[in-house]
Amino acid sequence: MKQLEKVILEKGRVLNDEVLKVDSFINHQVDPEVIEQITDYFVEQFKDTKIDKVLTIETSGLPIAYSVALRLGVKMVFAKKSKSQIVDDNIYQEEVRSFTRGTVSNVTVAKNYILKDERILIVDDFLAMGNAAIGLINLCEKGGAKCVGFCAAIEKSFQGGRKLIEAKNVPVVSAAIIKSFTNGKPVFEE
Amino acid sequence: MKQLEKVILEKGRVLNDEVLKVDSFINHQVDPEVIEQITDYFVEQFKDTKIDKVLTIETSGLPIAYSVALRLGVKMVFAKKSKSQIVDDNIYQEEVRSFTRGTVSNVTVAKNYILKDERILIVDDFLAMGNAAIGLINLCEKGGAKCVGFCAAIEKSFQGGRKLIEAKNVPVVSAAIIKSFTNGKPVFEE
Repeated sequence: MKQLEKVILEKGRVLNDEVLKVDSFINHQVDPEVIEQITDYFVEQFKDTKIDKVLTIETSGLPIAYSVALRLGVKMVFAKKSKSQIVDDNIYQEEVRSFTRGTVSNVTVAKNYILKDERILIVDDFLAMGNAAIGLINLCEKGGAKCVGFCAAIEKSFQGGRKLIEAKNVPVVSAAIIKSFTNGKPVFEE
Repeated sequence: MKQLEKVILEKGRVLNDEVLKVDSFINHQVDPEVIEQITDYFVEQFKDTKIDKVLTIETSGLPIAYSVALRLGVKMVFAKKSKSQIVDDNIYQEEVRSFTRGTVSNVTVAKNYILKDERILIVDDFLAMGNAAIGLINLCEKGGAKCVGFCAAIEKSFQGGRKLIEAKNVPVVSAAIIKSFTNGKPVFEE
């Protein structure tokens, strides 16, 4: 998606060989114009897919996930993060490791909100190593739902997350795919 | 807003004399139809007010704040919560006490995203004792911006937050105002 690549080149800040800050338009300040362009792209990619619900994880994925759900006319659910395992029969939980932050979170969804045979589209801001994605896909599986796709606004393809997701037969769609950071600039996949 | 009151009566769960769970349509699962009705109401109330930006706090306020920002054609900023004070000259921070949870959070916004003389509308899911609201208003003041209004989807008027906000000359608009929970049911202001 050339539009998003342009915004990333103009407004993203490359902190090192692995980290891109997008806090002026996605992660802290949110630019609806950019979010709506990303939404257009995702909705177009999945226009022939039946989708019952959109799932994301708090926090930065929420605006995009909300926008996609609104456009599709379905509900959105955001998984919550907690520091530790929760003792509660009414929730599904998965441990998710963040390599960027060096933390382990427990990611939870109330059982009421992932239902058997639901067709769920996962939407998030970033795809890096795929740990959060796999955690969310596993939550869908625990509820007997089917994850019909994973959408990321920005994929860092050199971190390998896509393979893990595709190995679960879940199609991946990213609005911008960065194959490396070279001389402090993102280089996009052709 | 009668539509929202109806949804609250149908789908909200009163846990005790102070806590209403709205996790089937706002707080965990998000129903875009309800969020858009709330957005319509807020936008109508502020149709004669110049607004440069929408501010909220992670996490549950994000979908409504995003929707309002999209409608107004302005950017949205979400303040972040951390456990402890952060040493960073590039952020504004405020301590916010949550009586519901018995916790104290440090709420932060990067200085880049609250600018002098900006006219900011704050949007959140709940107004209870007003602590988060006051924290956000103080963040606006620290940046030299003007908070032109505070919008809550659901206000629990018996917890007194409105007075604190109005004492700062910030108008308060709530889509539904609960004056008490009686026999396990919310009772709305006329």
